[in-house]
Amino acid sequence: MRIAVIGTGSVGQTLAPAFRRLGHDVVVGTRDPGATAEREEWASTDLPLRSYAEVATDADLVVNATGGDVSLEALAEVDLDGKVLLDVSNPLDFSAGFPPTLTVKDTDSLAEQIQRAHPEARVVKALNTVTAAVMVDPGRLAEQTTIFVAGDDPLARESVRQLLSDLGWVDIVEFPTLDAARGLEMWLPLWVRLMGNLGTADFNLRLVR
Amino acid sequence: MRIAVIGTGSVGQTLAPAFRRLGHDVVVGTRDPGATAEREEWASTDLPLRSYAEVATDADLVVNATGGDVSLEALAEVDLDGKVLLDVSNPLDFSAGFPPTLTVKDTDSLAEQIQRAHPEARVVKALNTVTAAVMVDPGRLAEQTTIFVAGDDPLARESVRQLLSDLGWVDIVEFPTLDAARGLEMWLPLWVRLMGNLGTADFNLRLVR
Repeated sequence: MRIAVIGTGSVGQTLAPAFRRLGHDVVVGTRDPGATAEREEWASTDLPLRSYAEVATDADLVVNATGGDVSLEALAEVDLDGKVLLDVSNPLDFSAGFPPTLTVKDTDSLAEQIQRAHPEARVVKALNTVTAAVMVDPGRLAEQTTIFVAGDDPLARESVRQLLSDLGWVDIVEFPTLDAARGLEMWLPLWVRLMGNLGTADFNLRLVR
Repeated sequence: MRIAVIGTGSVGQTLAPAFRRLGHDVVVGTRDPGATAEREEWASTDLPLRSYAEVATDADLVVNATGGDVSLEALAEVDLDGKVLLDVSNPLDFSAGFPPTLTVKDTDSLAEQIQRAHPEARVVKALNTVTAAVMVDPGRLAEQTTIFVAGDDPLARESVRQLLSDLGWVDIVEFPTLDAARGLEMWLPLWVRLMGNLGTADFNLRLVR
């Protein structure tokens, strides 16, 4: 599969090589490919860097790995029409320090904002409930844990589900509508406090039923 | 311990007898004890019913088991000064149907609203993250799961922690400030969607770290 990862922060740095290890053809989208190529974390990789405008041209699946505060702006330059967009971002607002608050919640979500901005995209929310290292390696935790997938398009959800399965996720709980992203994003206020309390981001919930 | 349970809905109906089975001296607070005594669910019990004004007089611990939409109004009639108040409620707003939204969130919580209305109470948030049957019987789930305690007063947290332990809770994660209730209450938007998705309220999260 041809995957375009948008965003060159810690999430993009973790997801892009992980998808390539799975055998996918991965390109990375960044505002200024020349500037990104000079950054220490990217200088040592041969992952192709592309401008936002070019990155999604041939992609089967696009991943929003930008920070939630800049996602709408960054994606505005990406052609998402007809593409599956896996949104792993969170609408965290750190402007008042830690713990962050949410810029959107309860009656709306960042995933839905992205969907409205790109009506022809097939947005799927997933992976936003765990730290990047766990996203790509659920086995690093001591037990199997649970991951969620929410989206309106069944085939788009299935594409994402397959990708999660390839990453090692077994307990995948699927929501058939994108507005379930409200619940997934509103898990973050507890998640960030647990991170502070536990002193690590290496944790996740296991749904026991 | 003398425990006053405020609220006669399904949560109060579950918590009050469970606390008595543990050997505690339990009274139940209701707006109109005479009317409540005639309701089918209460006619068959000998749990003492008291008005809000009288229920907390001798209590060591008061439990807010009222609906989140009426909690502030109900508790306004209860003398909570110096008492440990265990708040198990959630600020759910069902006025637009299912799934509910939250009446307070992100930068505030129902627990903090209650604390501000009763500055001399020692408010502790706990148990709001699971359905009533699981609150009092965590062993009904197939595996040990996790419960949370948040409050500013260390001794009040310890009282609640002991009570949870007596109910069978083992994995108790404690937050040292009441504002962590924001995270605990914001778990509900995911919880209610999981309930809809799984077709049962008999579930909980197990924190894997």
